[in-house]
Amino acid sequence: MGTEFANAQTYWHTMTKFQITILGCGSAMPTTLHHPSSQLVDVNEKLFMIDCGEGTQLQMRKYKTRISKLHGIFISHLHGDHVFGLPGLLATLSLLGRTRDLNIFAHKELDLFLAPFLKYYGSQFSYKINHVILDPSNVEQVFENNSIRVFSFPLKHRIPTNGFLFVEKELPRHMRRETIDFYNIPVRQIKEIKLGADFVTESGEVIKNEILTTPAKPPRRYAYCSDTAYFPEIIPCVQNADAMYHEATFTEFDGVRATETFHSTARQAAEIAKAANVKKLIIGHFSSRYNELDELLNEATAVFPETELAAEGMIIEL
Amino acid sequence: MGTEFANAQTYWHTMTKFQITILGCGSAMPTTLHHPSSQLVDVNEKLFMIDCGEGTQLQMRKYKTRISKLHGIFISHLHGDHVFGLPGLLATLSLLGRTRDLNIFAHKELDLFLAPFLKYYGSQFSYKINHVILDPSNVEQVFENNSIRVFSFPLKHRIPTNGFLFVEKELPRHMRRETIDFYNIPVRQIKEIKLGADFVTESGEVIKNEILTTPAKPPRRYAYCSDTAYFPEIIPCVQNADAMYHEATFTEFDGVRATETFHSTARQAAEIAKAANVKKLIIGHFSSRYNELDELLNEATAVFPETELAAEGMIIEL
Repeated sequence: MGTEFANAQTYWHTMTKFQITILGCGSAMPTTLHHPSSQLVDVNEKLFMIDCGEGTQLQMRKYKTRISKLHGIFISHLHGDHVFGLPGLLATLSLLGRTRDLNIFAHKELDLFLAPFLKYYGSQFSYKINHVILDPSNVEQVFENNSIRVFSFPLKHRIPTNGFLFVEKELPRHMRRETIDFYNIPVRQIKEIKLGADFVTESGEVIKNEILTTPAKPPRRYAYCSDTAYFPEIIPCVQNADAMYHEATFTEFDGVRATETFHSTARQAAEIAKAANVKKLIIGHFSSRYNELDELLNEATAVFPETELAAEGMIIEL
Repeated sequence: MGTEFANAQTYWHTMTKFQITILGCGSAMPTTLHHPSSQLVDVNEKLFMIDCGEGTQLQMRKYKTRISKLHGIFISHLHGDHVFGLPGLLATLSLLGRTRDLNIFAHKELDLFLAPFLKYYGSQFSYKINHVILDPSNVEQVFENNSIRVFSFPLKHRIPTNGFLFVEKELPRHMRRETIDFYNIPVRQIKEIKLGADFVTESGEVIKNEILTTPAKPPRRYAYCSDTAYFPEIIPCVQNADAMYHEATFTEFDGVRATETFHSTARQAAEIAKAANVKKLIIGHFSSRYNELDELLNEATAVFPETELAAEGMIIEL
């Protein structure tokens, strides 16, 4: 019985979806190989978009992601390859008859691009867009719901830029089901016990929570770091992430170009991953100069073996 | 000798490229089947774009069209599926280091979208953008170079919209080479004769131009009509076109929706083609509701057999 119940709990936990879909992992110059930056974080069937390069809505269609489940859009910075997909996406949401508000989290200057667009195209929109202004100079909690918190943190680029950290909320501990019958625990107290409370029997005996429950799986964390020069200041923010997407626009061979443009090399991305002890590194934002990405991957894995190349349509399950 | 010369002329004429590449022939709602509106008219290696829906620059890459040869952009109207590709395309042209001015021919209100974009993103652009304002209420010549004239003409849509007619300039007549030796015609007079002049021999005899030359191939004409309700007023503008692209968003079965939204059915497009005596009709701007386009094609060919369905990557040689 106990085992069965534990399995059921594990099953329930597995059902808590936390997955990332890469829609685009190219850089500013478009190619036939990669789309500009965008990805979706799916937490319990709510979709959070990070960045929205041109063609993002077409990529959503291609990979059969449910556009109606879009819950918010997080913009790292205002370079065109991260935002030029917004007009089309926002217009389509209205064509589809969306009624729920949509929050766009972005630097204040997004309004210089967004407000004139909304004034001309948005006056008949079926839903309201809220621009939530990010302060790219500080670590901030910018969003919270029942399942997650989202933080923004500063990156180092040519214009104000921030990364994002998605952190699952602490889950309730698992009840040992056999203890319910054994101690005759009323149903109404189970919720509190799952949150850590002890139980007092009718005879006044205190049963410690550790006897009644097993720990929940630790909250999962996903970090997004693009675009940025090598910037060790982010390490505390991305520490122990289950997965970190970090830009690797260039190889070390093109390191001078990386420095000039405030981008990272694959080796630098791996150095951050190693120092932050993340479980997995996904590199992306590849320069259009590379037709083959082997060199970027080899450079990173030499420092941090748990590295993968991002690719359009790739799904990362946490 | 004469025959040889005639062949050479024909060869030269064939070299005058006049071809259309369809980059997108879908309508407002994006699908995995079609891209939003855009096409390229290539006249003698100069590329003229008509409309620029989201993802147009990516389609240019896919179909290996030379982005550096872009000579001007003609915008039919300001609905998003015809203009949301502009920011990305214009930014990329600057990344590529373009120096030549770029003319964008569009309704005056394009500035409400374009000017804020250029103010924020365009201040460092490597080239200058000129917005040439179209008057969608009249037939106008809006562009002219050595090879072509471009006219805009009113369409009937929910907002001011115009079609475009690309007309090749009259070509010089072909010289019958054998007459040069026979009448001893000086080289310096050949240009005038090709333009229609008679020749006077040393003895004073007038040799009629028709004896000295054969007619040039008639100038080719390409007409673009999207988006529009059924609008017979365009017939004089598109008359005798070698090819006409006409929207056919709906089938007759969805005719009510066509009327409501100021779009055409496939049959209506064919009626226009037939009445205007065009050589070939290409239908496009397909509603996302149709996965199969056979019904649209059948409906059109029943009225006008020389109909083809547009498709991304399709090339039409005139």
